[in-house]
Amino acid sequence: MVTDLSRVTVLAGGFGGARMAQGFALLGDAVELTVIVNTGDDLELHGLSISPDLDTVMYTLAGLANDETGWGVRDETWSAAGQLERYGEPTWFRLGDRDLATHVARTARLRSGESLTQVTRGLASALGIAASLLPMSDDRIRTKLQTQDGWLDFQDYFVRRGHRDEVSDIRYDGIHSATPTAGVLHAIQAADLVVIAPSNPYLSVAPILSVPGILESLNAAKARTVAVSPIVGREAVRGPAAQLMRSLGAEASAAGIARHYSKTWPGLIDTLVIDASDGEEAAAISAEGLGVCVTQTLMTGQTERRRLAQEILELAGAH
Amino acid sequence: MVTDLSRVTVLAGGFGGARMAQGFALLGDAVELTVIVNTGDDLELHGLSISPDLDTVMYTLAGLANDETGWGVRDETWSAAGQLERYGEPTWFRLGDRDLATHVARTARLRSGESLTQVTRGLASALGIAASLLPMSDDRIRTKLQTQDGWLDFQDYFVRRGHRDEVSDIRYDGIHSATPTAGVLHAIQAADLVVIAPSNPYLSVAPILSVPGILESLNAAKARTVAVSPIVGREAVRGPAAQLMRSLGAEASAAGIARHYSKTWPGLIDTLVIDASDGEEAAAISAEGLGVCVTQTLMTGQTERRRLAQEILELAGAH
Repeated sequence: MVTDLSRVTVLAGGFGGARMAQGFALLGDAVELTVIVNTGDDLELHGLSISPDLDTVMYTLAGLANDETGWGVRDETWSAAGQLERYGEPTWFRLGDRDLATHVARTARLRSGESLTQVTRGLASALGIAASLLPMSDDRIRTKLQTQDGWLDFQDYFVRRGHRDEVSDIRYDGIHSATPTAGVLHAIQAADLVVIAPSNPYLSVAPILSVPGILESLNAAKARTVAVSPIVGREAVRGPAAQLMRSLGAEASAAGIARHYSKTWPGLIDTLVIDASDGEEAAAISAEGLGVCVTQTLMTGQTERRRLAQEILELAGAH
Repeated sequence: MVTDLSRVTVLAGGFGGARMAQGFALLGDAVELTVIVNTGDDLELHGLSISPDLDTVMYTLAGLANDETGWGVRDETWSAAGQLERYGEPTWFRLGDRDLATHVARTARLRSGESLTQVTRGLASALGIAASLLPMSDDRIRTKLQTQDGWLDFQDYFVRRGHRDEVSDIRYDGIHSATPTAGVLHAIQAADLVVIAPSNPYLSVAPILSVPGILESLNAAKARTVAVSPIVGREAVRGPAAQLMRSLGAEASAAGIARHYSKTWPGLIDTLVIDASDGEEAAAISAEGLGVCVTQTLMTGQTERRRLAQEILELAGAH
């Protein structure tokens, strides 16, 4: 069917968020796309400001992403990393040469006084990205995870320790004094459709929704809100989402996602998109008061990403 | 002949300074080597602190230098430079990936509060360099050149515009309030032999000797001071030294170097080493009151570098 929806705002983490965003970007002129990206994963390393989720979305939208690893740039080289290692710099967070250039340019521009929003716009525009790519805030927010070894920095937990620790609590340092940018609020208010990408509920979605003003703005907005479950077959498509849900008292399933979202952000989500392999959970999700859309949600290649985006667009238009 | 000289302090710019320093380093345990390096060429680019002369000396002593270009690292890759170009960052000062890692590490450490001396020691030590590598000062000094287009930053003149401008004056911004480090003063006071490398008299040697206290320390020191002429056959071995001498009223020749050094720093230099091809200038140099050593001064490979260093060591010991 033909739909007249056009302004789509995606809330995104890295891996699943980037692929979902690309699906909408591949719809071309039919969609005016804004992607609001988690920055709770950001870190400083070698004196550089690194925004892994923003970069994954940016590289993916620019067609530069390494689809095999799910992070970084394809056709990457590693000369600088080798030299940094010789200097005794920390090497657990591997930076390819092209990727390093992104952090160097970002850091230089931040230091010259540009906001992260301005820097991101400049970099994305230089890479020919038509979508509007927005950090969830220009303020510094850092996700921390409580484990048996105490509170860990996000990338320490995620990359250095390979997200193997049992997590008992999560906090977003800086979130209470953070504000969303005017661009973020506008993208929510003006949207015809808000899509919560299949990103980690605790590590990607929650930080965005916890920036004071964003949830209120979403609740007040006219847009339909569709979420895509990051859990397929009781496991995360990637990363520690399932393990975190279980640790933090939720059920790692599509229905568990529905309950977690409904409980945490009542009334926010209109429809949950779940994978066909989880079809038997549709009734339980309906019981939570959510609409359900059962389809193929795995976004391996561009074809699947575009098709899922098209389906969500039609779903929202048809409602 | 056998000499008991051992503590050698070389004053160095980039190209000729690095090769001269390596010559002494190749003498091994016979020499305790300190290299005091010009930092007037330093610049900030992409928010990074770049010290080209320190890096050329460091890469050369570490065996990493690109001998074909005379700057940068061999087996270099250029991925980051390509990405920086895509972002619209300035590209006239080309940074290879390995070289970029040096600037990233240096900048991070400077920002964390280390002095340039400390940073340089850390990087050089990590690369296995036994010699002591010292910036001429930890203070910010920037060489500027007056041309028909006004005062230019050093690298703007040297790299961006290919040192083609006629230079009418040179100044070293920040020099009057700069101080030499304790390490520099100690290396001069303790030296048995001070060698002024065949570096540019205005752009490498003069900045070092203009740091308040360095010339006084050299004049008070017990060491013999030997300079190697950077002019061979009335041309610079590399770079704009001959052209600058002519522009600034000196004669571009080995004898011109003798007169320039004697006039600018009276009594500083005991012996000038000149190339065999300039042997007919020996008498004119003697007339300036300087000792003369005529030999092969071109330091193409490690064999030539080591031989010249050995010869200078014997010369100083024999006197």
